[in-house]
Amino acid sequence: MRISELAKQTGISIPTIKYYLREGLLPRGDARAPNQADYGAEHVHRLRLIRALTEVGGLSLAAVREVLDALDTPDLPMHEVFGVAHARLRRSSRLATSSPELEEALVEVDEYLKRLRWRIEPTSPPRRDLAEALVVLRRLGHDVDTSLFDPYAEVADRVAERELEQVQRYTPRERRVEAVVLGTIVNEVVLSALRRLAQEHHSARRFGRRSRSTSPREQAKRARRRP
Amino acid sequence: MRISELAKQTGISIPTIKYYLREGLLPRGDARAPNQADYGAEHVHRLRLIRALTEVGGLSLAAVREVLDALDTPDLPMHEVFGVAHARLRRSSRLATSSPELEEALVEVDEYLKRLRWRIEPTSPPRRDLAEALVVLRRLGHDVDTSLFDPYAEVADRVAERELEQVQRYTPRERRVEAVVLGTIVNEVVLSALRRLAQEHHSARRFGRRSRSTSPREQAKRARRRP
Repeated sequence: MRISELAKQTGISIPTIKYYLREGLLPRGDARAPNQADYGAEHVHRLRLIRALTEVGGLSLAAVREVLDALDTPDLPMHEVFGVAHARLRRSSRLATSSPELEEALVEVDEYLKRLRWRIEPTSPPRRDLAEALVVLRRLGHDVDTSLFDPYAEVADRVAERELEQVQRYTPRERRVEAVVLGTIVNEVVLSALRRLAQEHHSARRFGRRSRSTSPREQAKRARRRP
Repeated sequence: MRISELAKQTGISIPTIKYYLREGLLPRGDARAPNQADYGAEHVHRLRLIRALTEVGGLSLAAVREVLDALDTPDLPMHEVFGVAHARLRRSSRLATSSPELEEALVEVDEYLKRLRWRIEPTSPPRRDLAEALVVLRRLGHDVDTSLFDPYAEVADRVAERELEQVQRYTPRERRVEAVVLGTIVNEVVLSALRRLAQEHHSARRFGRRSRSTSPREQAKRARRRP
């Protein structure tokens, strides 16, 4: 198909597609004439993948490129694919500087992961996310330790095991790698969305919801109270 | 204490503190002299809260302001506090435009939430996140329906219930509101970090890890393969 048809099928504008081509995110089509190329189903698929990564995953184009490189490296070990997908997700440690508190929390996190018997690289970024969570809560006067993680760890363990099981069903390998990347990113969105919805639900149950039948007068009063 | 001591205790620079004061994020100290103010423990706490929200939660200062406003509104219903915290978290729907596919997916999500008997406002943003996840996976050829959410929903339900239980233990109310906001934000980081660690662990178990004993030659070869 021509580029105009490709744009129509994917809903992505021609200038954007040309930009992806120039940036090497999208393989060139088969040349038919000096200024015309022929695109196929794999181009449609690749464009949709780019959009999934940017729009749902929130990845920058530089991050998308790294993920696509991993996809296009036929002998990249499966285990590394996760590494690439994780490293490119938005969250990365933010506490500006290291500190004795943070070092101490990292030791606690490592002991915790050891107790779980999880095999984790010492350089794995989410380790530090956990340590930062402890530091931040402690600074605000909350008396927390790693037992805070228990319910989440149990849940994470079960979810991850199920996800990995599913991944093995995909063939060929290229599709499997894509499934890992998509799963990592999309399921994170799904889990986070469901957690918020569940919070909304349980909060409504416990604290009563502000019903939408709140009278306009009441709403106006409320609006006035907020500067 | 003076502003210099406040900076020392929190590790936040004086210019930044002054900026927060000007922006109204931090209440002014008690005036002692025309150019001197006295700060107390509540200022230290507030500064740490601002940092937790920006550094761990990734909130913008505008978002921090809204959260702090909610904290400072003594009669804001508890249930609304969640709404404020959720709305300010980073993730919000990204699929550029609406489409018939998305509308259809939203209907499916609503039916799904109804089956769960969750009480959810129709305007709740994570609803749309779920619908987008379906759309994106379908566009990439995955034959998915809302049963995809089942394991996550179960998990989210249990986690949210436990969190709400804990929130009720906090008194006074101001601390409780803060606990809700912090919990929403910090626990999201914790859950996401643990999920990635669990993935790393299960991926290592299933696919074998790239051991760190990989020879330098092998590593160099790998590096060369990637442009």
